[in-house]
Amino acid sequence: MISVDRADLAFQLFDALPTASLGALPRFSDYDRTAMNEVLDTAERIAMEHFLPHAAALDLNEPRFENGKVVMDPQVGAALAVYREAGFFGAGFDREWGGAQMPETLRGAVNFIFSMANTSTAAYPLLTAGAAHLIASFGSDEQKDRFMKPMIEGRFFGTMCLSEPQAGSSLAELTTRAEPRADGSYGLTGNKMWISGGDHEMSENIIHMVLAKIPDSPAGVKGISLFIVPKILVGVGGALGARNGVALAGLNRKMGYRGTTNAALNLGENTPCIGYLVGEPDKGLSYMFQMMNEARISVGLGATALGAAGYRASLLYAKERPQGHLPGNWNPDSSPVPIIEHADVKRMLLAQKAAAEGALALLLYAAFLVDAIKAAPSAEASHDSRLLLDLLTPIAKSWPSEFCLEANKHAIQVLGGYGYTLDYPVERLYRDNRANSIHEGTHGIQAIDLLGRKVMQENGAGMKVLAARVMADVTQAHTHPELAGHAEELAAHLGEAVATTGKLAGMVGIDPRLGLANASLYLDMMGHVVIAWMWLRQATAALRKRGGEDANADFIDGKLATCRYFFLYELPKARTQRALLDNLDDTTLTMKPEWF
Amino acid sequence: MISVDRADLAFQLFDALPTASLGALPRFSDYDRTAMNEVLDTAERIAMEHFLPHAAALDLNEPRFENGKVVMDPQVGAALAVYREAGFFGAGFDREWGGAQMPETLRGAVNFIFSMANTSTAAYPLLTAGAAHLIASFGSDEQKDRFMKPMIEGRFFGTMCLSEPQAGSSLAELTTRAEPRADGSYGLTGNKMWISGGDHEMSENIIHMVLAKIPDSPAGVKGISLFIVPKILVGVGGALGARNGVALAGLNRKMGYRGTTNAALNLGENTPCIGYLVGEPDKGLSYMFQMMNEARISVGLGATALGAAGYRASLLYAKERPQGHLPGNWNPDSSPVPIIEHADVKRMLLAQKAAAEGALALLLYAAFLVDAIKAAPSAEASHDSRLLLDLLTPIAKSWPSEFCLEANKHAIQVLGGYGYTLDYPVERLYRDNRANSIHEGTHGIQAIDLLGRKVMQENGAGMKVLAARVMADVTQAHTHPELAGHAEELAAHLGEAVATTGKLAGMVGIDPRLGLANASLYLDMMGHVVIAWMWLRQATAALRKRGGEDANADFIDGKLATCRYFFLYELPKARTQRALLDNLDDTTLTMKPEWF
Repeated sequence: MISVDRADLAFQLFDALPTASLGALPRFSDYDRTAMNEVLDTAERIAMEHFLPHAAALDLNEPRFENGKVVMDPQVGAALAVYREAGFFGAGFDREWGGAQMPETLRGAVNFIFSMANTSTAAYPLLTAGAAHLIASFGSDEQKDRFMKPMIEGRFFGTMCLSEPQAGSSLAELTTRAEPRADGSYGLTGNKMWISGGDHEMSENIIHMVLAKIPDSPAGVKGISLFIVPKILVGVGGALGARNGVALAGLNRKMGYRGTTNAALNLGENTPCIGYLVGEPDKGLSYMFQMMNEARISVGLGATALGAAGYRASLLYAKERPQGHLPGNWNPDSSPVPIIEHADVKRMLLAQKAAAEGALALLLYAAFLVDAIKAAPSAEASHDSRLLLDLLTPIAKSWPSEFCLEANKHAIQVLGGYGYTLDYPVERLYRDNRANSIHEGTHGIQAIDLLGRKVMQENGAGMKVLAARVMADVTQAHTHPELAGHAEELAAHLGEAVATTGKLAGMVGIDPRLGLANASLYLDMMGHVVIAWMWLRQATAALRKRGGEDANADFIDGKLATCRYFFLYELPKARTQRALLDNLDDTTLTMKPEWF
Repeated sequence: MISVDRADLAFQLFDALPTASLGALPRFSDYDRTAMNEVLDTAERIAMEHFLPHAAALDLNEPRFENGKVVMDPQVGAALAVYREAGFFGAGFDREWGGAQMPETLRGAVNFIFSMANTSTAAYPLLTAGAAHLIASFGSDEQKDRFMKPMIEGRFFGTMCLSEPQAGSSLAELTTRAEPRADGSYGLTGNKMWISGGDHEMSENIIHMVLAKIPDSPAGVKGISLFIVPKILVGVGGALGARNGVALAGLNRKMGYRGTTNAALNLGENTPCIGYLVGEPDKGLSYMFQMMNEARISVGLGATALGAAGYRASLLYAKERPQGHLPGNWNPDSSPVPIIEHADVKRMLLAQKAAAEGALALLLYAAFLVDAIKAAPSAEASHDSRLLLDLLTPIAKSWPSEFCLEANKHAIQVLGGYGYTLDYPVERLYRDNRANSIHEGTHGIQAIDLLGRKVMQENGAGMKVLAARVMADVTQAHTHPELAGHAEELAAHLGEAVATTGKLAGMVGIDPRLGLANASLYLDMMGHVVIAWMWLRQATAALRKRGGEDANADFIDGKLATCRYFFLYELPKARTQRALLDNLDDTTLTMKPEWF
């Protein structure tokens, strides 16, 4: 039932964004539009033929912990072998290291396709790429050669090891220790928790990127260092040696996302656990933020893919399932209509389309910013794009995690009782998606990141960049008379959101507890404004195509109607939330634990 | 982790409602407040000792279909045997037939307790009571003696068989046929779907209440009759005879609510399936509506119980889990605080408390209306209560199904990664609760019931009763100066909601497609107004206790703060929705299937 809407993907990449223009840059000279389409064709073929078919079976038969090892459906490894053969493990990496040097925007579309088909299987290479990218950015050439290169080749997989059983959201409370050893390496001891892809037998090795504290380092987050900790020690020339002291303590059994192992790991419990310092001591958290920011975008994209998968599945069902009559037709002998004719079913499909395609537009926009930053001739030239990407990252992670989950809830509802059964994929998508507002920083952590940090950067310069880009698109939209109302509405919302931001940011400086008390609502509010922007961009791009050679009138009308849906049914909620935010409401703050 | 908040239950029953006064009525003379508390004690003890302990195991090891029979965790049957011994199967039925003649309000509290502990196991007796009540209302004395009495004794279980594979929401499309037989019984043929409790081996017999069409009956819903179809034929004097032709075709595997079997049944496929007409031919649907209305209240109560269970579990966790520091404390050496100190965690707990206790207030209010109707000296005297109960039923079913599911989502979030694992109950509660906006009439069906039928009854008389009762409580609230703001706000919302209702109801008469296009939003909007009313009632009742002998200051402050939370964080959403409703927005109506 799940299928990729290639027409929408092409529209998002090439009409709503100038992705094709990236091919003119030296770094991406291999990627003209034809080459990009070929990459998407390959991704779609592998996703549909090798990832999708085992998604339901993997969920029913999750990885098991047996005799200290992970036993997993062999179809996962087989699918990833095909993925590896096609070169996707190294998609974003430099040619110099064996990568395909693909633009991030295209890679985002590729990841979207694989995550739609099977989010659990797709997670392994995404985690590997994030870990390898950390080494690419901060590791030594020797570390790149020894650990990163085999990851780019897809022979080694990777993980990120931040959390511990007692410290999830609060990294200041990490207790894993790293003692210097005579040979310059470190001996690690501690327990890591929630490690996605933390153990399995699918790769020659697993490279864990581990946060730990070196003795006598400062307390809190300023004393955290980053280490490469291989599952199997790697000798000179890449020869695999002995097992390192990273022991699988157990697998977490989850409500969804079950095909991606999630492990508790013990470091240095019985066998010494050897780690290699990346970069300088005590800078681990700042390094890890690069990976976390990537991972956050990746989580947002995964949430979006699940939303899109549910939308496509429920759309197909709604077109094919006959039931009921339209209001006003009281003739009991008339034939039932396909349920897509019912207004309430259309509402649930519109809500899904608005969430999934609105979120996809944002995630690809963020990826395009990454490409723009990479392609910029200087740090100065990319300054604004970096600020905007920083600002958008918590929104790009959180909005899809919240509202594409809501979309999955609607997908179940469209199928009725059938949607609640294991015979259809929609209940699985809903379970899978529930992880996304928890991992890689919870919704509440993203909210504090946005309001307590990102909107403050450089005296609010990020908000100014955002406002300028939104207003440029508002001006564009005004060239189409039928979008004038939406354009005005977005401009009004933007102005109000900026005012609310100023008020809250000011209070964060005076009384951070009061200023941040409703940060989660602020995050959702800003998300709605940003997604409205994305819909106005899409509507504008759709109207630009009207009357053109490759114009599909139904497609264009669908974009316009969904834009209207978002502006009328969703965006007004942002104003309701701003009323509360502007009042600096302290209900949550003054509530006492003993009153519950 | 799950526990019953008896203090809140006592408050809801005896302070927010005059439940103790029911004991003065002849029908309920056995139930003074002491007796009621004893019933609750017994229910809590059995629920905690016999229902709760197997809830997780039952979910992991759902009933299986083997060799034509259902294989189920024996703990379910064992728990229900204890429940039967305590007399709860017959709780609401007349003493004349072996029942306990319990007030519905008390029975609601009892059902809430059992559903909190284990919604799957609790469903069997609830379904049985609903089926038995149909026979009590519309069956002959002979049918009561033969089928209903053993159900009241808990020896026979019951089901309701409405849906078919091709007809869930649209009963007009039923195709099961009932052919008259020479002895006055009927021979049924057809396929029934989604039958909760549809088969198992826990009772001596299962009594299915089946909708079917007699040949030459009118088309559509006007030609549906109701039949008693026992799994095992029952002879004179109650002797069990041969197996009737009701065959288990399969069990539906579901994302949650897994301990309650959900069956596809084939009627009369190989063996004749004998059924006994209840009441008159072609009146089946109107009879079944009694059961459906009861079942809808019961679903709302179940959704509420799941919301309350998640609230209590996450509250306990939040009090015990230390992590992080409060904003403004940048000392990395300070101890982490219990997470309940964080404003965002308090927000998620407030949202759960507001939803679960607000919904419980509504469900008990509805149950009290049932008692008031039963106790009224004449149909005239109960007229207003009947209208109000009719109006509130779709809200009482839907609001908890939607917003206590949202509460369960928050419960997972409070526990973070742990909440997503099978080690804690909150993910199961979330999966269980997702069923409730689907079964017994989907959210969309409830919306059409409310806007297309209930608000129209007797020219809007139900809305007038609602408005009068809300305004009476607004007046009460005004006697407490600190509630004056909330009271005014509720009065304003009520006035606007009445105006919106008039506008939409008028349009339903002119153009039903446009009038009903946003019925689901109307349902949610009315739900928020009604729950705000319930919170104002609770706040008023709490303030009445202040300074009294048994006053618990923390409890009272908690009620007031949660009332404030609902009025500030939730109720404004109703106004946002009314703006859309008042515009008679046609976005969903004009959206074309080919635009998706």
